Amino acid sequence: MLVLENNNVTTEQVKEFDKKYNLHSWSVQGTLNPMVIEKAEGIYFWDSEGKKYFDMSSQLVNINVGHGNKKIIEAIKKQADKMAFMGPGYAIDVRSMLAKKVIEKAPDNMGKVFFTLGGSDSNENAIKIAKMFTGRNKIFSRYRSYHGASYGAANLTGEPRRYTCEPGISGFVKFFDPYIYRAGIEFESEEDASKYYVDKLREQLIYEGAENVAAIFLETVTGSNGVIIPPKGYLKGVREICDEFGILMVCDEVMAGWGRTGKWFACENFGVKPDIITFAKGITCGYIPFGGVIVDKKIAEYFDNNMLMCGLTYNAHPMGCAAGIATLEVYEEENLIENSRKMGKVLGELLEDIKEKHPSVGDVRYIGLFSAVELVKDKNTREALVPYGKDPDKIMSRVIGMLKEKGFSTYHHENNIMIAPPLIIKEDELREAMSIFDRVMCFVDEYIKRTI
Amino acid sequence: MLVLENNNVTTEQVKEFDKKYNLHSWSVQGTLNPMVIEKAEGIYFWDSEGKKYFDMSSQLVNINVGHGNKKIIEAIKKQADKMAFMGPGYAIDVRSMLAKKVIEKAPDNMGKVFFTLGGSDSNENAIKIAKMFTGRNKIFSRYRSYHGASYGAANLTGEPRRYTCEPGISGFVKFFDPYIYRAGIEFESEEDASKYYVDKLREQLIYEGAENVAAIFLETVTGSNGVIIPPKGYLKGVREICDEFGILMVCDEVMAGWGRTGKWFACENFGVKPDIITFAKGITCGYIPFGGVIVDKKIAEYFDNNMLMCGLTYNAHPMGCAAGIATLEVYEEENLIENSRKMGKVLGELLEDIKEKHPSVGDVRYIGLFSAVELVKDKNTREALVPYGKDPDKIMSRVIGMLKEKGFSTYHHENNIMIAPPLIIKEDELREAMSIFDRVMCFVDEYIKRTI
Repeated sequence: MLVLENNNVTTEQVKEFDKKYNLHSWSVQGTLNPMVIEKAEGIYFWDSEGKKYFDMSSQLVNINVGHGNKKIIEAIKKQADKMAFMGPGYAIDVRSMLAKKVIEKAPDNMGKVFFTLGGSDSNENAIKIAKMFTGRNKIFSRYRSYHGASYGAANLTGEPRRYTCEPGISGFVKFFDPYIYRAGIEFESEEDASKYYVDKLREQLIYEGAENVAAIFLETVTGSNGVIIPPKGYLKGVREICDEFGILMVCDEVMAGWGRTGKWFACENFGVKPDIITFAKGITCGYIPFGGVIVDKKIAEYFDNNMLMCGLTYNAHPMGCAAGIATLEVYEEENLIENSRKMGKVLGELLEDIKEKHPSVGDVRYIGLFSAVELVKDKNTREALVPYGKDPDKIMSRVIGMLKEKGFSTYHHENNIMIAPPLIIKEDELREAMSIFDRVMCFVDEYIKRTI
Repeated sequence: MLVLENNNVTTEQVKEFDKKYNLHSWSVQGTLNPMVIEKAEGIYFWDSEGKKYFDMSSQLVNINVGHGNKKIIEAIKKQADKMAFMGPGYAIDVRSMLAKKVIEKAPDNMGKVFFTLGGSDSNENAIKIAKMFTGRNKIFSRYRSYHGASYGAANLTGEPRRYTCEPGISGFVKFFDPYIYRAGIEFESEEDASKYYVDKLREQLIYEGAENVAAIFLETVTGSNGVIIPPKGYLKGVREICDEFGILMVCDEVMAGWGRTGKWFACENFGVKPDIITFAKGITCGYIPFGGVIVDKKIAEYFDNNMLMCGLTYNAHPMGCAAGIATLEVYEEENLIENSRKMGKVLGELLEDIKEKHPSVGDVRYIGLFSAVELVKDKNTREALVPYGKDPDKIMSRVIGMLKEKGFSTYHHENNIMIAPPLIIKEDELREAMSIFDRVMCFVDEYIKRTI
């Protein structure tokens, strides 16, 4: 029974009070046995028994600089001493400085930023901004997407977490993703696939009345729903359709932004400039809850003469602004964007080997340090290891449990395992972690053979 | 041109960058001239020219302990050093300890708490929880209410900020508040008024199909929409209707909770136990963005066997938990709940004098340190100083400007001025601030006489 440093509770009490008083997200509470975490440093964290884990999902793909970054901690402490809170209506130094820094990093068409509380809140505000600016009501987004869990963001979302906010909001329309591994069509090239999906999107827009559509929302690289990377030419095609019909292109970079894909913003990989970018996670790495909506200059100008009807008490929070400035400086000083690219190359090679070796690995997709491993029952038929939206035997949870037991911490969504380590990871650490993954996949191969 | 301490920007640059790069909430950006704030301490803050302001709205009715509270700052710094972030799925010391503390403070029917990012997020989750628990779809809330600006919370909201999220979500029904000053009926007593409003609510529920209604949401004491205090017996009547039809009673205590009304929770003033309480603001006083949803034991038990389909990356944030523990300890150690009651009594007396004295003051409403002053064109007809949802001549902004110019900082909503100072305020400070208010009301009397 370990006494936690500086707090008068034992590990057992932490567990007991947690079970007794806390409601945990996305869980059946009765079956929970939450791990007690005592320490976290760099790419690792430790449970109450001293067991060490590689944090191979950067928690929820947010802790890009790793745990315990001294520079960000110092910035937080300094801001707490100076001014922990000041309402969003006032100008304060860190609020101005971070806004300037964000716009300087963003694509050159961008004008201003609206700071929020996180990813869901960013997408909520992007919907409102798109509707205000265009005067149109319909919003397009994709089936394999997650944009958040509050009502607006959940109605954007295509995957089952959306069902929790249904009956939903009128005017939200879903379209198919360029998910080539499960397209059901054999394309001759990526360009060919892009042409198909862009044409289908255009057709659907016309059926819905393109002149009624305010915005098309896309995760630049789809995150939780399988790290789906847009094929060559796809995003440019979407950009062209948006221009054709006066629709705003909104890139959700909550996961993909801030270096995750080896660029400051994921859209830079694909040569497109969205009208709006939403972000969160990597801006402060979650050290303080924070996010934002970056808007094109023409949208910024529109609100010079029209009221921006958005805002919450904690928006543009001083603590988040201070943490954000420090985080962006860490990316620069530690060359983390470059390291994401470099280590991403290593990760890609390791993943290709894993795919080749394991019958249970159907597909691997990766860009920078953002990747997913898709598990299948059968490599030839591509049948998913668990059917969409269901896993009654908890097969995927068991796979995640096996990984965790060997010290490789991550999470899954459907039949995809997320691998997205902190951008500070070194090559030997990455190889060590992935060799654990490789070994566990051998068990998974066996397990699947035995039980399915 | 003052150089800001520790940051390489001048006041002029703070202003320049703010105008150039930041989008401000609920504003026409072009006409903004945001005040640069440099320092805040206790019940005061200072602009870049050294001018000092009484913070008579506690910013956005959140900074209950005042600015710069050393104990909370130390807790934030300690947690930043220890563990700034850990995903909501894990048990950590501060998460367990704060949950225990919140449930101990809450009414004794309460079982568990779900920690969120703020008030809007709390209400979003309360809607989802109420629908999951009851299996019903309709949600009742009141016209004179504000519950947040994200889609779900905005659809709960009755006042014009709701329009920004319309066309809205099906199943949200609005009912009338017991706003006796503008009831259009002469009631013989508060009890009489309560009976009328409760009967009307019951009638409306039956028209809507009471068996389809998941929850009735109410701000226990209406906040921004005029500090409307429920008449004697009203909330008990609502509680009885909820019990009759199996509807959940949800009290939004985002503003009213945590000592604002002279009790830990505002519902204690009225002898009712809601099924769900949503909170934010006072739990950390905004030092770190944070909020929560407290649920009755029967709801907590339901989720032992059913999935709670709620959750965001930053929920139950370690920094917020640490700040929350410290904040609750400050309330206790500094007897702030008691001070809210005591100073509330003084404030009430001062407000009654002001109402008596000024032709422009139609009504004053107060409970604890939560109060509003309602301005009218004519005390006899009770005609509001500005019509609902409109103020083309910016009369109310001008009144707020006059107050600010004299060092009394607050905000208005419609024709109501919010007066809700930090709970640490002392009697001489309160009297000094309210004497400024009194003097400014003389100008307002004149101004109204002259211009209307």
